Amino acid sequence: MRIVDIIMKKRDGAALTEEELRFFINGYVTGDIPEYQASAWLMAVYFRGMDAVETGLLTRLMMESGVLMDLSDLAGPLVDKHSTGGVGDKTSLILAPLAAACGAQVPMMSGRALGHTGGTLDKLESVKGYTVDATEDDLKRIIARAGYALIGQTAQVVPADRKMYALRDVTATVESIPLITASILSKKLAEGAQSLVFDVKCGSGAFMKTLQNAEILAESLVKTGQAMGRKVIALITAMEEPLGRMVGNFLEVEESWNCLQGGGPDDLMEVTLALCSKMLLTSGLCKGSDEAMDLCLQKIKSGEGADRFRENMIAQGADWQWFLDHVGTWRAPVKVEFKAPRQGIIHEINAYKVGMCALGLGVGRNKADDPVQPHTGLHFLKKRGESVAKGDLLCEVFALNDQDARQALASLEEAFRISPDPMTPEALILKEVGEL
Amino acid sequence: MRIVDIIMKKRDGAALTEEELRFFINGYVTGDIPEYQASAWLMAVYFRGMDAVETGLLTRLMMESGVLMDLSDLAGPLVDKHSTGGVGDKTSLILAPLAAACGAQVPMMSGRALGHTGGTLDKLESVKGYTVDATEDDLKRIIARAGYALIGQTAQVVPADRKMYALRDVTATVESIPLITASILSKKLAEGAQSLVFDVKCGSGAFMKTLQNAEILAESLVKTGQAMGRKVIALITAMEEPLGRMVGNFLEVEESWNCLQGGGPDDLMEVTLALCSKMLLTSGLCKGSDEAMDLCLQKIKSGEGADRFRENMIAQGADWQWFLDHVGTWRAPVKVEFKAPRQGIIHEINAYKVGMCALGLGVGRNKADDPVQPHTGLHFLKKRGESVAKGDLLCEVFALNDQDARQALASLEEAFRISPDPMTPEALILKEVGEL
Repeated sequence: MRIVDIIMKKRDGAALTEEELRFFINGYVTGDIPEYQASAWLMAVYFRGMDAVETGLLTRLMMESGVLMDLSDLAGPLVDKHSTGGVGDKTSLILAPLAAACGAQVPMMSGRALGHTGGTLDKLESVKGYTVDATEDDLKRIIARAGYALIGQTAQVVPADRKMYALRDVTATVESIPLITASILSKKLAEGAQSLVFDVKCGSGAFMKTLQNAEILAESLVKTGQAMGRKVIALITAMEEPLGRMVGNFLEVEESWNCLQGGGPDDLMEVTLALCSKMLLTSGLCKGSDEAMDLCLQKIKSGEGADRFRENMIAQGADWQWFLDHVGTWRAPVKVEFKAPRQGIIHEINAYKVGMCALGLGVGRNKADDPVQPHTGLHFLKKRGESVAKGDLLCEVFALNDQDARQALASLEEAFRISPDPMTPEALILKEVGEL
Repeated sequence: MRIVDIIMKKRDGAALTEEELRFFINGYVTGDIPEYQASAWLMAVYFRGMDAVETGLLTRLMMESGVLMDLSDLAGPLVDKHSTGGVGDKTSLILAPLAAACGAQVPMMSGRALGHTGGTLDKLESVKGYTVDATEDDLKRIIARAGYALIGQTAQVVPADRKMYALRDVTATVESIPLITASILSKKLAEGAQSLVFDVKCGSGAFMKTLQNAEILAESLVKTGQAMGRKVIALITAMEEPLGRMVGNFLEVEESWNCLQGGGPDDLMEVTLALCSKMLLTSGLCKGSDEAMDLCLQKIKSGEGADRFRENMIAQGADWQWFLDHVGTWRAPVKVEFKAPRQGIIHEINAYKVGMCALGLGVGRNKADDPVQPHTGLHFLKKRGESVAKGDLLCEVFALNDQDARQALASLEEAFRISPDPMTPEALILKEVGEL
């Protein structure tokens, strides 16, 4: 078998066999197949796609390229949620403790900020002491205590994806449904979760800009995951404006904590509760949607969700007193206010532009090894559909210095659109894909 | 400018600007752009193609990646011919001395055998002493003496193509019209030829299997060459069966020598004279086709073509007496005969299969650094359209050993198709592309 023949076969539109895909994945991981042949193959896959069988094979072979976690001795169903990434998307920080409070075990391997999207790990690391590096034993210990863990991908898990994702990023081959599917699913499957809920974001601040593309990805994730024997549901959710009122690292941890105490903004709570309900349904902890939703709300009211949050923080090394002392007050030194330039109704708070604005403040990173700032970010006082008078405070900016702050104000000017016409924001939950 | 953005732009089907192409070519040659990004770009070009302007820019930028030869102090018009490669294609060895005898200067940089196709340089090196390594000064000296030179590409000429061709070969990105065009033309333009004749082979033994594809490549070569200010004509010629009666290295040099003495087979002479006439027309040495054809025939009859051949041999280091002593007799040790398995008319001598058969005998090479055999090969006694009786000698095989010989006989069995039905081989010159 020669790799050039495999590239040619895919280039010419044929489906690759298990033997061919195994030859490729194994050769790539060992380094026998050089990066320049892998990238030509990736671009051929970008153009030709993969059928459902191929996508499933690729997912499994990537998963099998590394260690498979065995968390079966943990009590309770193992369930996870994955989002395709957005702006202000801190749902993981809220739903993981809620699901844990409801009896689920959540072994969540999360990602870092890249480009305009934030990263769960970067948010958590803004808390003094919190560490996301964990072995399999650490993971079990953390879940046993808190019911959930939020950790980074270890070097042993799906090395094929670690290597391939870095290559895709620099060869313009990220945007491929089968490659995205295999990348996401191989990691989630290696974690050992028995059921999975996907949040496929759709809109200006999402990877998928149109509902049609979001549906294609959701279908691919659900079908491939189901073919691998997991219970899978995907929700397609709107990502036109930032989710919630905070965009930043510590700011988003703080907002998540507020949500668990019952003070969450409507849009963020709607998406979080919808996803968490699905976790309870796919894992079999609840039978119906109403029951699941009620249980989630009850775990907020009772404080059990907040308890799980605190237990996780402590189990992952955070200084809990430091956290409580900093909530509501820890902000980057330069604060400026963005005010409504005119009267009207907010039609748009472009999530992509807000994400890029936050990136400029140091919330995110351009390259994988850039550092991020813990306490910079944005606090939105108004959201889409609200009417404002000229001069109303729309957003607070927390920046490291004057220059960053000025640039952020200019970006916000671009991101907001205010018009006298009436407007009603579209639904947040756009579609559900997959049946239980 | 970031290379990933350039890959993405091409991936999404847009035309690249001169600045973007220069950034890519220069970065690739210096090594600043790694092979894995270049190969993703190549695959994107494979799928998206390039418009005429882009192809011209790529050709010029590749040409400018290295040294441009200045042969302007040579007397007479500089003209060259290039073939896309076939089986038994030794036209260069015949038309170069003929064109030189007619007053042209031919600075021909040629290639080596790869896969089923033969290589002019390998054929010439089968002659004792002949060397194809030459500096620009050597080239001038050889042309001044013989009117033509047949040399290998130097490291200084079009380094972008040397590097890129090796990468295309292992990443399944060879078969792309703009990449082929830029690769061929950039080298021919760097040589300094003012006019160019292309022999675009079409058929089983050619790179282009269909007339339609051959036309697309011919049009691309002609238009791009003309846009660079050169006079260019392309002939599309048949490559269904081997050209002439010999397939081998020394065997083909010998057949070429026989052609220059008036003893050439019809098909080989028809293609050679058609191409040579075009060289005389594009270079302005002749005004009309009849005049050009007559002049070529006259240079064979007068022996002036053969004189140029001898002068070139000596100028490039060959032992001329050794050559004369070996013509007609130097053959690999094991000779076997392939005889007609039945009576009928020869419908097919599949050129690709013959090429692969010759490759098995050591005439060609699978990889760029494989050695080749000088004196193995095939001698065809019968060609397509001829009637044969059962047992008639169709082909002599000259092999290194019994095993190779047996394998060659089995391959010939596959390559020949003999049927009782009548057949007339198609025309050899299928189409002319480009006007003077």
